[in-house]
Amino acid sequence: MEYRIEKDTMGEVKVPAHAYYGAQTQRSVENFKIAQDINKMPKEIIRAFAYLKKAAALANVDAGVLSVEKKDLIAAVCDEILAGKLDEFFPLVVWQTGSGTQSNMNVNEVIAYRGHVLNGGSLSDKEKVLAPNDDVNKSQSSNDTFPTAMHIAAYKMLVETTIPGLEKLRDTLAAKSKQFMHVVKIGRTHFMDATPLTLGQEFSGYVSQLDHGLRAIKNTLPHLSELALGGTAVGTGINTPDGYAVNVARHIAALTGLPLVTAENKFESLAAHDAIVEAHGALKTVAVSLMKIANDVRMLSSGPRAGIGEIHIPDNEPGSSIMPGKVNPTQCEALTMIAAQVLGNDVAINIGGATGHFELNVFKPMIIYNFLHSARLIGDGSVSFNDHCAVGIEPIEANIQAHVNNSLMLVTALNPKIGYYKAAEIAQKAHKQGTTLKEMAVSLGYLTPEEFDQWVVPAKMVGKLPE
Amino acid sequence: MEYRIEKDTMGEVKVPAHAYYGAQTQRSVENFKIAQDINKMPKEIIRAFAYLKKAAALANVDAGVLSVEKKDLIAAVCDEILAGKLDEFFPLVVWQTGSGTQSNMNVNEVIAYRGHVLNGGSLSDKEKVLAPNDDVNKSQSSNDTFPTAMHIAAYKMLVETTIPGLEKLRDTLAAKSKQFMHVVKIGRTHFMDATPLTLGQEFSGYVSQLDHGLRAIKNTLPHLSELALGGTAVGTGINTPDGYAVNVARHIAALTGLPLVTAENKFESLAAHDAIVEAHGALKTVAVSLMKIANDVRMLSSGPRAGIGEIHIPDNEPGSSIMPGKVNPTQCEALTMIAAQVLGNDVAINIGGATGHFELNVFKPMIIYNFLHSARLIGDGSVSFNDHCAVGIEPIEANIQAHVNNSLMLVTALNPKIGYYKAAEIAQKAHKQGTTLKEMAVSLGYLTPEEFDQWVVPAKMVGKLPE
Amino acid sequence: MEYRIEKDTMGEVKVPAHAYYGAQTQRSVENFKIAQDINKMPKEIIRAFAYLKKAAALANVDAGVLSVEKKDLIAAVCDEILAGKLDEFFPLVVWQTGSGTQSNMNVNEVIAYRGHVLNGGSLSDKEKVLAPNDDVNKSQSSNDTFPTAMHIAAYKMLVETTIPGLEKLRDTLAAKSKQFMHVVKIGRTHFMDATPLTLGQEFSGYVSQLDHGLRAIKNTLPHLSELALGGTAVGTGINTPDGYAVNVARHIAALTGLPLVTAENKFESLAAHDAIVEAHGALKTVAVSLMKIANDVRMLSSGPRAGIGEIHIPDNEPGSSIMPGKVNPTQCEALTMIAAQVLGNDVAINIGGATGHFELNVFKPMIIYNFLHSARLIGDGSVSFNDHCAVGIEPIEANIQAHVNNSLMLVTALNPKIGYYKAAEIAQKAHKQGTTLKEMAVSLGYLTPEEFDQWVVPAKMVGKLPE
Amino acid sequence: MEYRIEKDTMGEVKVPAHAYYGAQTQRSVENFKIAQDINKMPKEIIRAFAYLKKAAALANVDAGVLSVEKKDLIAAVCDEILAGKLDEFFPLVVWQTGSGTQSNMNVNEVIAYRGHVLNGGSLSDKEKVLAPNDDVNKSQSSNDTFPTAMHIAAYKMLVETTIPGLEKLRDTLAAKSKQFMHVVKIGRTHFMDATPLTLGQEFSGYVSQLDHGLRAIKNTLPHLSELALGGTAVGTGINTPDGYAVNVARHIAALTGLPLVTAENKFESLAAHDAIVEAHGALKTVAVSLMKIANDVRMLSSGPRAGIGEIHIPDNEPGSSIMPGKVNPTQCEALTMIAAQVLGNDVAINIGGATGHFELNVFKPMIIYNFLHSARLIGDGSVSFNDHCAVGIEPIEANIQAHVNNSLMLVTALNPKIGYYKAAEIAQKAHKQGTTLKEMAVSLGYLTPEEFDQWVVPAKMVGKLPE
Repeated sequence: MEYRIEKDTMGEVKVPAHAYYGAQTQRSVENFKIAQDINKMPKEIIRAFAYLKKAAALANVDAGVLSVEKKDLIAAVCDEILAGKLDEFFPLVVWQTGSGTQSNMNVNEVIAYRGHVLNGGSLSDKEKVLAPNDDVNKSQSSNDTFPTAMHIAAYKMLVETTIPGLEKLRDTLAAKSKQFMHVVKIGRTHFMDATPLTLGQEFSGYVSQLDHGLRAIKNTLPHLSELALGGTAVGTGINTPDGYAVNVARHIAALTGLPLVTAENKFESLAAHDAIVEAHGALKTVAVSLMKIANDVRMLSSGPRAGIGEIHIPDNEPGSSIMPGKVNPTQCEALTMIAAQVLGNDVAINIGGATGHFELNVFKPMIIYNFLHSARLIGDGSVSFNDHCAVGIEPIEANIQAHVNNSLMLVTALNPKIGYYKAAEIAQKAHKQGTTLKEMAVSLGYLTPEEFDQWVVPAKMVGKLPE
Repeated sequence: MEYRIEKDTMGEVKVPAHAYYGAQTQRSVENFKIAQDINKMPKEIIRAFAYLKKAAALANVDAGVLSVEKKDLIAAVCDEILAGKLDEFFPLVVWQTGSGTQSNMNVNEVIAYRGHVLNGGSLSDKEKVLAPNDDVNKSQSSNDTFPTAMHIAAYKMLVETTIPGLEKLRDTLAAKSKQFMHVVKIGRTHFMDATPLTLGQEFSGYVSQLDHGLRAIKNTLPHLSELALGGTAVGTGINTPDGYAVNVARHIAALTGLPLVTAENKFESLAAHDAIVEAHGALKTVAVSLMKIANDVRMLSSGPRAGIGEIHIPDNEPGSSIMPGKVNPTQCEALTMIAAQVLGNDVAINIGGATGHFELNVFKPMIIYNFLHSARLIGDGSVSFNDHCAVGIEPIEANIQAHVNNSLMLVTALNPKIGYYKAAEIAQKAHKQGTTLKEMAVSLGYLTPEEFDQWVVPAKMVGKLPE
Repeated sequence: MEYRIEKDTMGEVKVPAHAYYGAQTQRSVENFKIAQDINKMPKEIIRAFAYLKKAAALANVDAGVLSVEKKDLIAAVCDEILAGKLDEFFPLVVWQTGSGTQSNMNVNEVIAYRGHVLNGGSLSDKEKVLAPNDDVNKSQSSNDTFPTAMHIAAYKMLVETTIPGLEKLRDTLAAKSKQFMHVVKIGRTHFMDATPLTLGQEFSGYVSQLDHGLRAIKNTLPHLSELALGGTAVGTGINTPDGYAVNVARHIAALTGLPLVTAENKFESLAAHDAIVEAHGALKTVAVSLMKIANDVRMLSSGPRAGIGEIHIPDNEPGSSIMPGKVNPTQCEALTMIAAQVLGNDVAINIGGATGHFELNVFKPMIIYNFLHSARLIGDGSVSFNDHCAVGIEPIEANIQAHVNNSLMLVTALNPKIGYYKAAEIAQKAHKQGTTLKEMAVSLGYLTPEEFDQWVVPAKMVGKLPE
Repeated sequence: MEYRIEKDTMGEVKVPAHAYYGAQTQRSVENFKIAQDINKMPKEIIRAFAYLKKAAALANVDAGVLSVEKKDLIAAVCDEILAGKLDEFFPLVVWQTGSGTQSNMNVNEVIAYRGHVLNGGSLSDKEKVLAPNDDVNKSQSSNDTFPTAMHIAAYKMLVETTIPGLEKLRDTLAAKSKQFMHVVKIGRTHFMDATPLTLGQEFSGYVSQLDHGLRAIKNTLPHLSELALGGTAVGTGINTPDGYAVNVARHIAALTGLPLVTAENKFESLAAHDAIVEAHGALKTVAVSLMKIANDVRMLSSGPRAGIGEIHIPDNEPGSSIMPGKVNPTQCEALTMIAAQVLGNDVAINIGGATGHFELNVFKPMIIYNFLHSARLIGDGSVSFNDHCAVGIEPIEANIQAHVNNSLMLVTALNPKIGYYKAAEIAQKAHKQGTTLKEMAVSLGYLTPEEFDQWVVPAKMVGKLPE
């Protein structure tokens, strides 16, 4: 490969001749050969930096510390980054400096050098029209840019992928709940037969879980909306113009269309990532909900002949390389694996979040890597589960009916009539002798067949149903 | 020990003669010999049950399904439980049935039998005035009572212990932040010297963390305020009178003074504990904050001679059994151990929360045990840290001053004057040759001594301070 | 309460008049009011200290630095502690100094003062025959005693409670596996019907899990057997006589009957608790196994009429306060709650273990609290599950037989005869049309009824069975 | 894009014309649009499958159920896969069916179709020389192949990347320990000054941690060496020839050069992944060690002027985009981020491991994804930390010396001479009045200057040093 020589404050470095990045990016490539094929800095962070650098240039122009020409060049490259045209020049991995300085410098270098080329220059020019530190990074530090990019990327992922994905699934489940509202089925507690409810009621619980989960996620957005930018090196805002922090946040909000604001306290914003920890706390809550829902769906659809078999889910693919004709609840499996992953990611984020020291938390790349992973998985996973499973759920009425009719727990309806103890006697004896409840109830002399038929009516045991 | 014979639907059981509990409690004692000396069902749950049983009796009277006489007896025993007079009769452990049925029955039995005695009866009477299932548990199931007790206990602990403890610490740190607002000190990022800030600014970050953490906890209270009671066995409300769910929640709210309401969806309330998972997500966020704060305090107070030594914390006890005169940051240690515990408890809760099936989650006792543990530890730990450490924090001005004056990172103030590269050259050469920044800056010819003194002023590098 | 005045290097403290402890214990009681009613330092640690202090006295006598008279007094009190006679004088909690210094001093004080009384003195004597630091703590530091007590207590709990409990359960499951070896049943993968196996084969998987888990635990014992004692303050062994470390370990081994040895590297022993982290890694592996086993048991026993219902487990207690006659898999529930707890404890231990600094890890009490909790829960829980569930498991042959006969996955036996694709066609069409495999196979013309009967024999599909 | 039509038992599917895969791979691509750009099935699993499929073909030939010609074709494609030539044809993600069936079929399809082309056929031929299920997958099931691939990949990663990386770091630290064995420095416990030790002793603790960690990893290899292959669908080995399981494991061992064997109990191997859980338990233990080591290194190297500053680590890159001349402990940061990630991955693995049901665990892809991630990160991270940090660590003798000389904890050497109480008085008064220990000791009249110089000698306080 051909190289050119680049310099930073530590000396010269050989850089691939065509690369828009410079010495500091190259140093990081060489110093952090850690899972380079699988753990690139998430592209969402690179894109968030593009918004940020453009906004900073605008704010610097507003403050009179950057020329319009330089701003225009910076903005042009940022637009290229946002369009995905420069992806190959962001080779760095998550496992670098914990402040993300190297990714900030990677962005600074690409913008400076690509901007120079856009301006008619050449990568081999010794002097370039834009300087990575003094122009592109003006009024900024890695310490405030990286956490700002974290919040932009996290907020964007939540509102564009996670929340819509969950809402789609929630709406499908709500429609199913309505559709199934009068399908009376056996309840199960402790995995054991219990009193009846309707399939629609069962699904309404899932809807309620997701409604609460969505609310939990939304509750964490205000903290996430706070941007560190303007705090620079340690939170004091050294080397920023007056009014810069508020103004640059305003520009970021305008560029992204997100309701982002400058953080009230910049010391927190650099030294802690409680906003991410808190928001991921909501994501893990949703993961817990999804695990429950997907588990229920796979168990309810189990069989086809030796399981519970009360619902049918779509047959999407052959399920076994050895057992012909087998179909499996694969979407449930993907979703529960995702839930487990999110619960693991949560712990990594907690540890990272807890281990900041003094003015800076240096677990930033790891924290945002895990956050974006979870937010993406929940969003994508919900859509996949929705489209390839939830929309196709249908009750298997024959099985449902048989289970209800067989149930010993219908005896519960007799408590107010004959008391808990006699009711228990009926159920226990029917169980032991393999009779129906009615047969046993009558033979024990506790009620007449007519009373039984009048008092024990599954459809009346499910409470009031919504219209 | 003397015994009497009690019966339940499964047969006879020998119970300690004087015990107010009956057969089902005794079965659980014998069947679950698991850590019985250390893992009793939390007393907060027992007390929550007392509120609940009294409220249920009141609602049953309102509905005309319970006599006033029985209600009065039930209420009287509940008041004794709340006063802590019957603690010895709640011997069950956390590791029992996952629905908490046995603790519900324990409460039902104690109320029934103690009520009978209050009514002038004797434990050895074959017939008792109150029946555990048909009277005390009327219109209830373990499946809705236990989760209701969970929410009452969790909500109460948060508002009575956790939040006040955190607010106390927050207020102390806010006062310290104000007091130290003009103490200029060196910043540290990556554990390395950085640009200056004030000690008050540093502490303001802690205050901001706790402010956000308190808000996060409070955001979770609405979900926690929802009570399952009225759902009975599977969420349908079988065997409850009309209007019961709303009314019993109203009674609970009145008795506890907490803004508790009936859950909109009872199927969720029995089958999932997302409300607890979500609220503990806020607690773990606060644990992360406390870990950061306590770590900073212990590192800032390290020394006395070979550490950072910028703050003094109270000397509370001799710190070493072998090193005479040693004093250690023991409150920081207790608080960080608590933070680690809460992060562990979070995982246990997540797993429990994720593993409900169909109409019931059967990890209830484990979930609430961990939740109450965390909420208590954070509350108690914050008060202890506050009273025995935070209130006594004072700056060690001599060390703070020396660190600032020595710092090479003051060079950052020169970026806008001479550019990042020349500034870096000054810092690097001063570091290598052991000179001051000023000596090196002048000797390199980049500025005059007068310019240095005018441009490099630590107190001007900390931004605008609050009045 | 009556008080007496005690002193330490920091001054005077009021101590309950009758208490055998002194100033430092009292300071800790007052300074750490954190969950004092529920989180006492585990009694296993106090007992481990008793072995340790006695052994240290013996080694000090061997080295000629302690008189035989003092040793005898120390040993006598240690024996009282081991007999549980002095429990009330160990009031300290887990949430204290992270080195456990205060519990070490608590033990030193109790031994010194109780020893003085045993020697005929009075607690109010100004001079006492034994000094807590100079005699009882001679040749020791909290920094090496507490980790030594951790290892003694952990090792003891593993070999006396955890391993025997697991072995008991393993043996029962092995016996059941043998008993059920010829009960052919349907297999289930993805919760869906699969090819058959025998119930004994299914149980043999559980046995294999526990066998491997037991081996995993035992693999960690060598690291746990290493004792820190002799490292004193920072691992260098300052203020210890020659040969002391090896000798005191020898005494501890003799007193406890455990194969404990002095650690090769004392710096690790004080600064890190990887031995505990590693051993708990084995415990969490076993927790994972127990979760799988208990889940299978509860699902296999589900029903009685609308579940899988292939095994019967003992009816131990009434299962519901509202549903008469209900019986639940409560031992499974306790065991799975325990598994979740252990997985949470693991995270707390990991965080504590990872956060040691320089010469000392100061998360010691939290780490050992969680370790002992897990080790105890697994031991007790296994015995409880064994005695009240596993021993009573019996197959429900009628259901098992019906499930096998109905299964579509028997078609797999036809792969080698007619190929995967035709076999799949048979299964899919039989499923859709609700016929048996045989009917469909014949009607499709792929084989004769005789071929079917010859080739599709569930009992021949389970492989070779052990004799 | 051009397409061709492929079929499976469910019908026709459009597949990219040039793709070597078929209908089932394509279904998975379309049904699991979950993080497809970032979460491909790890290439290590694909390669492990190549060993496995080749070995199965060999064993099938041995058993006389596959022709040599077909075996040769299968083997040729496997070799291409191992050479990385077919990577583009493995497009599936981790978030698919939990048995990994789709990845098994992906491999089966690529081998069959590529084999057909190697044999001179064309992808558009309707009949192909190899059939994915009946030839390539002969005597196999996803249920035994995927776990076998998991063990091959995991074992390989441990012995080729993780263990060598750790050993490299261990050896460097051991060399440093030896080099620094006589550099006397201050000890620190609770972050506070303590008695002295040597820098070499401090480093010997790190070496001991890694030695034990390596042993812990190696202890888990036997369980990992057990292969599921031969269990087929549910562990019974249905549709496998006699002696196949042992023979195919022998072939895999020969092909990989790893000491792999057939599992004694196949039911465990399919239904549980305790071997992975156990092995990752060792990895998390090592992560805990690395966190401690890296934290110490960054704290010891902190400064350069306002920190501890006792060691120098290599300056690898400019550390700040705003603070000129700043250098940070970036390798420590990468390594501690890795440690946090591994601790998070551990939880995901635990949850997946605990959630198998009946004959199959369906969290397989998620479990192995996390395992390989951790094993890789620890290996790569250790090498990076070694090469760019550990090898360059040097003591800063001036600071070390100053810290020792200033220390008040040297007073500990006086305990055996004047007792703990008087020693404490000296230290406390020297601290308060800012004097040296010697001045205070003499002024209090407890010893003469000569005695002090004779008794308080840091170099004599560090115990016996290795030659």
